[in-house]
Amino acid sequence: MIGALNHIAIAVPNLDEAMEKYAGPLGAKVGKPKDLIEHGVTVVFIDLPNTKIELISPLGKNSPILSFMKKNPAGGIHHICYEVESISNAISKLTKDGAMILGDSKPKIGAHGNPVIFLHPKDFNGTLIELEEVKS
Amino acid sequence: MIGALNHIAIAVPNLDEAMEKYAGPLGAKVGKPKDLIEHGVTVVFIDLPNTKIELISPLGKNSPILSFMKKNPAGGIHHICYEVESISNAISKLTKDGAMILGDSKPKIGAHGNPVIFLHPKDFNGTLIELEEVKS
Repeated sequence: MIGALNHIAIAVPNLDEAMEKYAGPLGAKVGKPKDLIEHGVTVVFIDLPNTKIELISPLGKNSPILSFMKKNPAGGIHHICYEVESISNAISKLTKDGAMILGDSKPKIGAHGNPVIFLHPKDFNGTLIELEEVKS
Repeated sequence: MIGALNHIAIAVPNLDEAMEKYAGPLGAKVGKPKDLIEHGVTVVFIDLPNTKIELISPLGKNSPILSFMKKNPAGGIHHICYEVESISNAISKLTKDGAMILGDSKPKIGAHGNPVIFLHPKDFNGTLIELEEVKS
């Protein structure tokens, strides 16, 4: 079912410092910060030849990553995102197989404008997994 | 400097259960466990179209991931690995830019038979980064 790794999201306390680490010592191609108000994060895309890194930092008082930042004040990998052909097929299969979908089990529109769901870390080795519908 | 994302390594307490999660609900192509005695881990490769997931579990009493497993008993993302063209050029650049290379700053031979180094998570937003020399 899962296809390509769409991105790794790394939550950081200070976006400027994190961008400088990736642009400087790691010599990566770092984009510009973009506020995603409806997602409660500011995001910076780093394009790698085969996937993307997304640096995210909290935006606003209700940012969904505030509790993660409290637990991980220096930052850390927040989630990884796999592509699927059909989010509704993915929901059917995961529900049948007993995996827990976060929220109300209905897809939301993600940061790239595609339907997404999140799977509970307790079902997947302590990793928060996002599935994003990307039509091939 | 950094090129493609070579892999994401996810440390898991129970390899069989983790393999079943990826083969079952996530429907991925999961390989067979392989003991890497000199690296102190048992590893399972999961091939995605654009990169790899490596499930790792501790092997032996001196496994380098034992302390991670103590802190994260349910598992979690242990490190991410970026490819570089030249590990010696990477070491020069990182040292000049003030990043801390783990160990004695000399490359080791990694799980894929290529020279690798690890960078200190405190320099990179709480993420442990492996750099692997992969000739293009």
